[in-house]
Amino acid sequence: MNGAETMIRTATQAGIEVCFANPGTTEMPLVAALDSVLGMRAVLGVFEGVCTGAADGYGRMTGRPALTVLHLGPGFANGIANLHNARRAHTPVVNLVGDQASWHLAADAPLTSDIASLARPVGWVHEVTGPRESARATASAIAASLGPPGQVATLIVPADAQWEDAESAPAEVAEPQMPALDEARIASLAETIHGADRCVLLLGGQGLGEAGLRAAHRLAASGLADVMIETFCARIERGAGLPDFPRLPYFPEQAVEALAGTTHLVLAGALSPVAFFGYPEGQSRLCPASAQEHCIAQPGEDIAGALTALADRLGADTHPKLADAPRPEPAHGPLDPASLGRTLAALQPDGAIVVDEAATTGFGYTPFAANALPHTTLGLTGGAIGQGLPCATGAAIACPDRPVIAFQADGSGLFTIQALWTQAREQLDVTTVICANRSYRILQVELARAGIAEPGPNALSLTDLRNPEIGWTHAAEAFGVPGTRVETAEAFAQAFLQAQSEPGPHLIEALL
Amino acid sequence: MNGAETMIRTATQAGIEVCFANPGTTEMPLVAALDSVLGMRAVLGVFEGVCTGAADGYGRMTGRPALTVLHLGPGFANGIANLHNARRAHTPVVNLVGDQASWHLAADAPLTSDIASLARPVGWVHEVTGPRESARATASAIAASLGPPGQVATLIVPADAQWEDAESAPAEVAEPQMPALDEARIASLAETIHGADRCVLLLGGQGLGEAGLRAAHRLAASGLADVMIETFCARIERGAGLPDFPRLPYFPEQAVEALAGTTHLVLAGALSPVAFFGYPEGQSRLCPASAQEHCIAQPGEDIAGALTALADRLGADTHPKLADAPRPEPAHGPLDPASLGRTLAALQPDGAIVVDEAATTGFGYTPFAANALPHTTLGLTGGAIGQGLPCATGAAIACPDRPVIAFQADGSGLFTIQALWTQAREQLDVTTVICANRSYRILQVELARAGIAEPGPNALSLTDLRNPEIGWTHAAEAFGVPGTRVETAEAFAQAFLQAQSEPGPHLIEALL
Repeated sequence: MNGAETMIRTATQAGIEVCFANPGTTEMPLVAALDSVLGMRAVLGVFEGVCTGAADGYGRMTGRPALTVLHLGPGFANGIANLHNARRAHTPVVNLVGDQASWHLAADAPLTSDIASLARPVGWVHEVTGPRESARATASAIAASLGPPGQVATLIVPADAQWEDAESAPAEVAEPQMPALDEARIASLAETIHGADRCVLLLGGQGLGEAGLRAAHRLAASGLADVMIETFCARIERGAGLPDFPRLPYFPEQAVEALAGTTHLVLAGALSPVAFFGYPEGQSRLCPASAQEHCIAQPGEDIAGALTALADRLGADTHPKLADAPRPEPAHGPLDPASLGRTLAALQPDGAIVVDEAATTGFGYTPFAANALPHTTLGLTGGAIGQGLPCATGAAIACPDRPVIAFQADGSGLFTIQALWTQAREQLDVTTVICANRSYRILQVELARAGIAEPGPNALSLTDLRNPEIGWTHAAEAFGVPGTRVETAEAFAQAFLQAQSEPGPHLIEALL
Repeated sequence: MNGAETMIRTATQAGIEVCFANPGTTEMPLVAALDSVLGMRAVLGVFEGVCTGAADGYGRMTGRPALTVLHLGPGFANGIANLHNARRAHTPVVNLVGDQASWHLAADAPLTSDIASLARPVGWVHEVTGPRESARATASAIAASLGPPGQVATLIVPADAQWEDAESAPAEVAEPQMPALDEARIASLAETIHGADRCVLLLGGQGLGEAGLRAAHRLAASGLADVMIETFCARIERGAGLPDFPRLPYFPEQAVEALAGTTHLVLAGALSPVAFFGYPEGQSRLCPASAQEHCIAQPGEDIAGALTALADRLGADTHPKLADAPRPEPAHGPLDPASLGRTLAALQPDGAIVVDEAATTGFGYTPFAANALPHTTLGLTGGAIGQGLPCATGAAIACPDRPVIAFQADGSGLFTIQALWTQAREQLDVTTVICANRSYRILQVELARAGIAEPGPNALSLTDLRNPEIGWTHAAEAFGVPGTRVETAEAFAQAFLQAQSEPGPHLIEALL
């Protein structure tokens, strides 16, 4: 058994079933090894950002890593942006990146580069030293990816470590253990925040699952804490029957206002809130300097368990009532962020997975979606745009029985438009809704924020996507996905319901 | 004047006229500054690999850097693959990458990452320390990019170093000096190789301009050296009236055979020849171990001057005759790499710039192109695919009076397909010829070379691009470029001539 086979067998024995790949010559033994086992599904992405974004979506939905197979430094580099998002989401991902044969590295052949330097900024990295280490290194990478919390793990595998005889069996993966609840910490925290003027609980990460949301709701309903949700969620359960809380606003002035008067800030799976960007005269921290900050559970800890224990200690109502709002009604007339968002929230099917990279248009959807049918939303955690279409692709492969909706800004969608092809090849039930406002709207907002009331021709040209307008339905057709363009809420509703009634991917270009 | 303005003014004073950009919030002061000067043209790429590949094409044609403006680590990462190609081509490129405000870095906001670690593998890197250093740092980056030889230079610029008052003027760029000819080295080399059994001159880099080719031809025609050309050329002048030499073959077995019997290897702008990839039982070096290796001129030195001096010393014929081959005739019948290549070589206009990322299909074109009308060919230097469409975009902006042909493999073209949009927006005279063989053909060859005669379903799926077939004409239309699909040499000829007769970009999908 060669090194590549021991690697793939190690992965399948650890329960890894999917490999998103765009390989090259230095990964050929790995490619061959994918067929040497049962139960490994190779999915081709025709751009590496599709592979890494799909692995992120897959990992968020299953909690288990997918493999990626990427070609040397440049191929890996094309996947970094979506690995950056995976890193911020704590998603388990295992990248297998081929390298020149060990004896050929010094020759500095054209495709040679410092892969480790490229990989370090997104997580755990290890360079395989030879075929006998291949299996063990793969097991280490899988274990590292699982955390807790999850992370991106990259194995750099010289071609000869793949093709040479491994003289070893597949390796066992040490399954991760979630740390036990720290009851003392929770008891102390309960005492500290009891009777606080304004205690804000900031919920994030795996705290946004149903159990975490319900525990937080107990605290909120009993008046023990104001609950807020981190601005960009890796994964959150939403919709009818689930508690909903306000998001921490995106712009720092609004976030500072939302946190004003906080005396105690309790972090549950969320990081200490900081501005997304710094601005002149601005600040990094969003919470009042006078507030005491506490962490009840970090990413990778049992967030729901800790919140439940806290609620119990504080005597919070065990079954508080939920607000009973009606499901939104579809809108009528021209499309704008509100009418599009409301119509989508009204019509999205039960159990949908909504990948939200709708950027500025998404602000119109989020409030309505709180009362949609129950669904899972995956967000843009790292700000690296081009996440939506790949993430939806991976989520659909992870959950073939659930409809997936890619709610996608047009500017961001162009970065990884090639994901549509993988959706067509794999016949995934993804409905992509393109929010076609023909601009990098957020940058136009930022120019205005920077005091540039009348942008010059260069600034205009760098934020506008007209001239020519992107023909999204033609692009969809090019990649094998049926596409429809709509201009009214009624037409959107019709196209959306049609897409839901047919198997396979669809794209709707919603003109805003 | 703020830091950003001193940077852009420093660039325009150094003669930089074009900026390929995909900015974000951390680059807004730079975006505004682009309008604060006269003579800077901002060109939007809707994916960063378009920007960096365009800067590479622009730099190869002008010898001067373009700027890129890219957004933080993830935006820069999307541009790395084509910067890797630029690095191998010794192309001057200056990247301006925004970073979080210096006081905001420690907050580790979602888009924060280690940009320097990402940038180091592609060249020179500097992190700007503040607004007062912005201009000086920009001048250093421009000087670094110019070499000689040229290179990729990346400036990481915190947002506050852009928006704060610079308290300084734009800085002067120290223009690079090419080192003087080393006459003693040339005299000694002339003595050494005189009467050698087999002296091979390997020509590369800037030695592939007309002067270098003519000097090499003097040596070849006088029987003093066998001249070969490096496998992947950054830029080479070819066609009727220009000397043509065999390329060093791509596959190592063939390259070893071509170099067999070499007693002296003289490198002129080329690196010591090594295999593109290592294979089992293979070797890195392609030249016989017994051969003496000499370098007459490195990249960045006066290669044509050194070869001319060598030819003079050895008494080579000063005006040797050129082989007088007729221009190729267009082919007839079905398209295959030979008939497509021959027809393209027959019809390409005088003075064309041909960006050759045709991969396996390109093998059919290269021999015919030797007798085409005089033209410039830009090749894939670093093996990072997705170079062709962006490089053609940049070349067309550099040389608006020359027709540009992007001769493009379909698999590689998908990586940066978004370049078509920039071609449409800027109405560039680029004719893209897609070699649609519906596969990663080179990987199918590599699988066979690896002894995998019957690839399994996963390996097949990772090398085949059918199911669904890419509709290149639809993709072109989506991005605003008129597209035509052809299946015969005659139809290709007609579509090609039609494209040449109209201004603006065109795409021809040639079914192979």
